Amino acid sequence: MIVELISVGTEILLGNIVNTNAAFLSEKCAALGLSVYYQVSVGDNYQRLYNTIKTAFDRSDIVIMTGGLGPTNDDITKRVAADVLGKNMYLDEEIKNDIYSYLKNGPYSFIPESNYSQAYVPEGAIVLKNSNGTAPGLIMEKDDKAIIMLPGPPKELKLMFEKQVEPYLRKKSDCVICSETVKIASVGESQAAEIIKDILDSQTNPTIAPYAKLAEVHLRITAKATDENKAKEMINPVVEELKKRFKEDIFSMDETEELEDAVVKLLMKNNLKLSTAESCTGGKIASRLINVSGVSSVYEKGFVTYSDMAKSDLLGVNPEIISEYGVVSKETAIEMATKTAMLTKTDAAISVTGIAGPDGGTQATPVGTVFVGCYLKGKVTVQEFHFSGNRENVRENAAKRALNILRLRILKEL
Amino acid sequence: MIVELISVGTEILLGNIVNTNAAFLSEKCAALGLSVYYQVSVGDNYQRLYNTIKTAFDRSDIVIMTGGLGPTNDDITKRVAADVLGKNMYLDEEIKNDIYSYLKNGPYSFIPESNYSQAYVPEGAIVLKNSNGTAPGLIMEKDDKAIIMLPGPPKELKLMFEKQVEPYLRKKSDCVICSETVKIASVGESQAAEIIKDILDSQTNPTIAPYAKLAEVHLRITAKATDENKAKEMINPVVEELKKRFKEDIFSMDETEELEDAVVKLLMKNNLKLSTAESCTGGKIASRLINVSGVSSVYEKGFVTYSDMAKSDLLGVNPEIISEYGVVSKETAIEMATKTAMLTKTDAAISVTGIAGPDGGTQATPVGTVFVGCYLKGKVTVQEFHFSGNRENVRENAAKRALNILRLRILKEL
Repeated sequence: MIVELISVGTEILLGNIVNTNAAFLSEKCAALGLSVYYQVSVGDNYQRLYNTIKTAFDRSDIVIMTGGLGPTNDDITKRVAADVLGKNMYLDEEIKNDIYSYLKNGPYSFIPESNYSQAYVPEGAIVLKNSNGTAPGLIMEKDDKAIIMLPGPPKELKLMFEKQVEPYLRKKSDCVICSETVKIASVGESQAAEIIKDILDSQTNPTIAPYAKLAEVHLRITAKATDENKAKEMINPVVEELKKRFKEDIFSMDETEELEDAVVKLLMKNNLKLSTAESCTGGKIASRLINVSGVSSVYEKGFVTYSDMAKSDLLGVNPEIISEYGVVSKETAIEMATKTAMLTKTDAAISVTGIAGPDGGTQATPVGTVFVGCYLKGKVTVQEFHFSGNRENVRENAAKRALNILRLRILKEL
Repeated sequence: MIVELISVGTEILLGNIVNTNAAFLSEKCAALGLSVYYQVSVGDNYQRLYNTIKTAFDRSDIVIMTGGLGPTNDDITKRVAADVLGKNMYLDEEIKNDIYSYLKNGPYSFIPESNYSQAYVPEGAIVLKNSNGTAPGLIMEKDDKAIIMLPGPPKELKLMFEKQVEPYLRKKSDCVICSETVKIASVGESQAAEIIKDILDSQTNPTIAPYAKLAEVHLRITAKATDENKAKEMINPVVEELKKRFKEDIFSMDETEELEDAVVKLLMKNNLKLSTAESCTGGKIASRLINVSGVSSVYEKGFVTYSDMAKSDLLGVNPEIISEYGVVSKETAIEMATKTAMLTKTDAAISVTGIAGPDGGTQATPVGTVFVGCYLKGKVTVQEFHFSGNRENVRENAAKRALNILRLRILKEL
């Protein structure tokens, strides 16, 4: 079943926005076993839009359109699509009521009449409710083919697609595609590929695709089958094999779980309290931890100690250690972690000291050098890293590697 | 002059990557006064690619293609485009030498013969050098029209476009489009639009477009003229008028400058030292500040005090204030800022306490309530906010508003 995507909007043609809708819909279609052959972006111009829809409807089974469903005069998607299929428009009273309900609590002193233009729909169209806005979506069918029209704002589009369009398309497709993601930290993409080279080389269905993320690799296992259960049965043994090979380097199998979520879960499970002392990462570790709702039971206190003096003043790091070994050194990282744990009376403490650049590097300690100290229940370890990339990249990498060091130590030692 | 963009690659149609190249090229074309009417993405399939190029060349003056110039068998862009224009291919010895020079220092023990397929070019084509990779770009001309082929990797594409394609296109265009961006903090998009309603209503050339960013609004002024100087002459009076209306709410006119860069500049100029105490933002302010290279002369120390006890233990906040007024209160924010400045002996201190959600809200203090304290040279102020959105959004907004409060106080009081 062939799908064509049409994105309507001048802002795309002017480059004012990146067309993330097309990527979202393409990925969803692929997961449904539908083949996208063309993505086209076109402006709000009657003739060009008409030709684009006509061509797409002739050469594809399903045309999915986004944008141009708003209340203003330049929103013409619905009307042009109706013309291509030779349908008239009528005012749908139910949609009109929905629009009124949505807008009556809004910031308007009166509801502009133009909003009700959104209540006009082509004859025979299936109406898709929009719970995040006023523009309804539409499905028009003809000759076993369909044109699906969705609103442009991603928030409205995604919800409508997942709740209403996906079930519709699933019925049209003769297969399902399911996938699972295995998330790995502290193993590089090429290293991960080496570890599973035999599986990668011999894969057909399910397939494994490695995706490199910041300080992470995600392995996506995808199976094509006649139903969801069969697909899952094909995926499970692959997941088991990956678990055997990557062991505790796997931090999550959940699409929505971040590394810090896994760390906070582990801290909670082991009833541990954590504190942090950050120099070059300067609050990045704290900020990740605090983005986990409910973190307060395991994380209360952190220090940002950017200067040498801050490390001595706030943490009590011995200035002699800094002057003897340098502020970016194993010894300073160890002292920072230990002193932080003592000071805050926590079971665990993470420390980071490094040179994020672009300035400040020396031959002995080049830009990208970072030491991560990790105190856990009386024992402190230190690890040295050499990151590449810009300042932001070095800092982000250091923060994630530091979180993962703590995660691995808890798993292995407690 | 009409432009059509064609992106070639299965990874786009599968939704594995977002097509940022199309946005980049569209924006560049708009700035050159060229009109993009269509963007099309298509896979590495001979017939579909042939039809797409043929259609584009028939209805446009310039076709810009990206992707499909690699060394493998599925990279067919060059060959198909040559077929559309009826040109033969030949081996270009200079390109072959370039490829050899580029690869000889690489990780290969030998250079795979397939790489030299990239040295084949259509007769009469203009060759564009690729300093970031092995795939040269190409321009084929016919009947006053042109097909421009560029490599898909953004790093290669951007450099090649800016250095070689832009000058080529500039000669073909009879006008230039220039723009300036005025960046404003702590004024909402609709409020900003209200302030300049008269200008927005009467605009023709230059035009003003407001863009809402996180806790910022960017106003982009764009002029179309016969040369760059004339465009700038048209933009300048508009910028001056905006400066009059938004005054110190404008924090930058520089495309690459962030709010924290402006704050750090001001601290340096006024020779001020800053410290921070963050509860719900938990390191976000510190992290933004430390992303500014050279910040160490003005920012050394910060605290993450997520629990009540942390605020008392680390900062010396009076526990009675917390128990009397609540931890999320004006009084606690004031106490946090004052105590932090005293403790760290800095001229300025920012404090944040709030409820980022999703849990923890009460009727009196709902989720999204945030107090920002700001100590500056002996005087402390506090501001109350009610943010909407998820946890991350509340935290990001709070961090940026806090930075801007300090910025405005320095500007107005010192």
